[in-house]
Amino acid sequence: MTGKTFLRAVTACCIALPALAFAQNSLKGPIVVQGAMPIEAEHFAQRLKDVKEEQIGGWRFWRGTIEGYPVVVSETQKGMSNSAAATAMAATQFKPAAIINQGTAGGHDPALKVYDIVIGKYSVNLGAFKTPHKAKGEGSDSTQWKPMDLLASKGSAGEDKNPHTIRQFPADAQLLAVANDVKGTYTKGNVVEGVIGSADIWDSELDRISFFHNSFHTSAEEMETASAAQIAAGFNIPFIGIRILSNNITNNGKYDPNTGLACQDYVYQVVKAYIAKLKSQ
Amino acid sequence: MTGKTFLRAVTACCIALPALAFAQNSLKGPIVVQGAMPIEAEHFAQRLKDVKEEQIGGWRFWRGTIEGYPVVVSETQKGMSNSAAATAMAATQFKPAAIINQGTAGGHDPALKVYDIVIGKYSVNLGAFKTPHKAKGEGSDSTQWKPMDLLASKGSAGEDKNPHTIRQFPADAQLLAVANDVKGTYTKGNVVEGVIGSADIWDSELDRISFFHNSFHTSAEEMETASAAQIAAGFNIPFIGIRILSNNITNNGKYDPNTGLACQDYVYQVVKAYIAKLKSQ
Repeated sequence: MTGKTFLRAVTACCIALPALAFAQNSLKGPIVVQGAMPIEAEHFAQRLKDVKEEQIGGWRFWRGTIEGYPVVVSETQKGMSNSAAATAMAATQFKPAAIINQGTAGGHDPALKVYDIVIGKYSVNLGAFKTPHKAKGEGSDSTQWKPMDLLASKGSAGEDKNPHTIRQFPADAQLLAVANDVKGTYTKGNVVEGVIGSADIWDSELDRISFFHNSFHTSAEEMETASAAQIAAGFNIPFIGIRILSNNITNNGKYDPNTGLACQDYVYQVVKAYIAKLKSQ
Repeated sequence: MTGKTFLRAVTACCIALPALAFAQNSLKGPIVVQGAMPIEAEHFAQRLKDVKEEQIGGWRFWRGTIEGYPVVVSETQKGMSNSAAATAMAATQFKPAAIINQGTAGGHDPALKVYDIVIGKYSVNLGAFKTPHKAKGEGSDSTQWKPMDLLASKGSAGEDKNPHTIRQFPADAQLLAVANDVKGTYTKGNVVEGVIGSADIWDSELDRISFFHNSFHTSAEEMETASAAQIAAGFNIPFIGIRILSNNITNNGKYDPNTGLACQDYVYQVVKAYIAKLKSQ
């Protein structure tokens, strides 16, 4: 290494020191709270103390604290790809103690109303399927598609011999317990455990929604949770998805954007309770 | 900052120095070559000089050189989420000069044969759609779905007023030119410019494939390129997808896993030509 290179290296190290100090001050890593849209992230970011906004590539993060514990709010942007990328960034840059993906969702379960909250005991990818063979003129029927588990083998999914079951991305047990513990703080609807389905699709075919609800037990659909959960699992980071119904086509529940704020308020209670648990360990 | 924390920080900096030296030694950052499956990545990794394998979370990377220039091979694993995550890791950890996503694909164009190579002038997400409204009993017909561009707004995609056109993720002009320049080195099939379609779906409904080919001009389908392209664009990293047909259901082209090796050999020529261009600039 030349002297000039070494000097550049030392300069880069000094720039990196504040980030390191941040990690040293925490009991474990920070809690990362993800929201896809500004309306799903900014409200939570405003509740952080000593907050600093930071950009990684095209993605916004806010670093701050809640009750002295480091919390990072991540605006993942919409969809499965953005969600996976933002989770990988959070994992490598912040080494989080936990990741909570939260925001709005469309109901699949007619028993759930707008403002009800689904604590995801697990999530599933509603965009990963193998279609049956259909010849020209035989059309396309997505209710006949079979789940495809892209983590089932390292080889071509087309060559996998066994039929797939849908991959479930489970919530971390401690996060699930804490999310249930604070149910009583929520007054705008019911809070239930359920299954979150994710894909880059906005579904309005009621037979397709019934197929998902009946086959995979989905409570609601959105576009990020299962993708973030898959990547968090690749880093062994405890994860949970928490989603509020902003609309429900199965029972004519009309879209209300303010549900996004209510979900962030609920997740704030979850984060506070989780911090109390981390501090007591 | 306490003395102890500072000492820890300096230790961490020293550990970080080799990575920094790697970046300093390159003209720009490394070229990242992505492959989803072992059979799409290991063959290329074996051609690197001074190669070191490295793990980030559950993902493998090989760092080495080609003609003295740093090259990183990334085994992204399969599917849109893994591809996006591996691209985000590459972007933040290696600050690449360029990313090439390559591997096998299934044909959408009956004019293309197994072993033909598609240089992706752009890619599209074949998993991002809005379905029309269909009442109970009206079924599901994916050939009626409309493309949904999740980058079109920061708000709810359900509330976007304008109909969407499919988002095109274009290849970098210089990478596209270089990929075309080395066409003459390939003897196992034709090399054509085309459109790569990506989704976590293995399509075997011929009407659905025709819908994609006719509406979005797809040459072939696979499960990673458009997702990696979207994330690379978020970091302003020059990107291209290069895919070989491993099978083609539209003309009874049977699956051949050795196509993955042939594609890596072609991409090796592209990388060498791109390095020559970078060195001459």
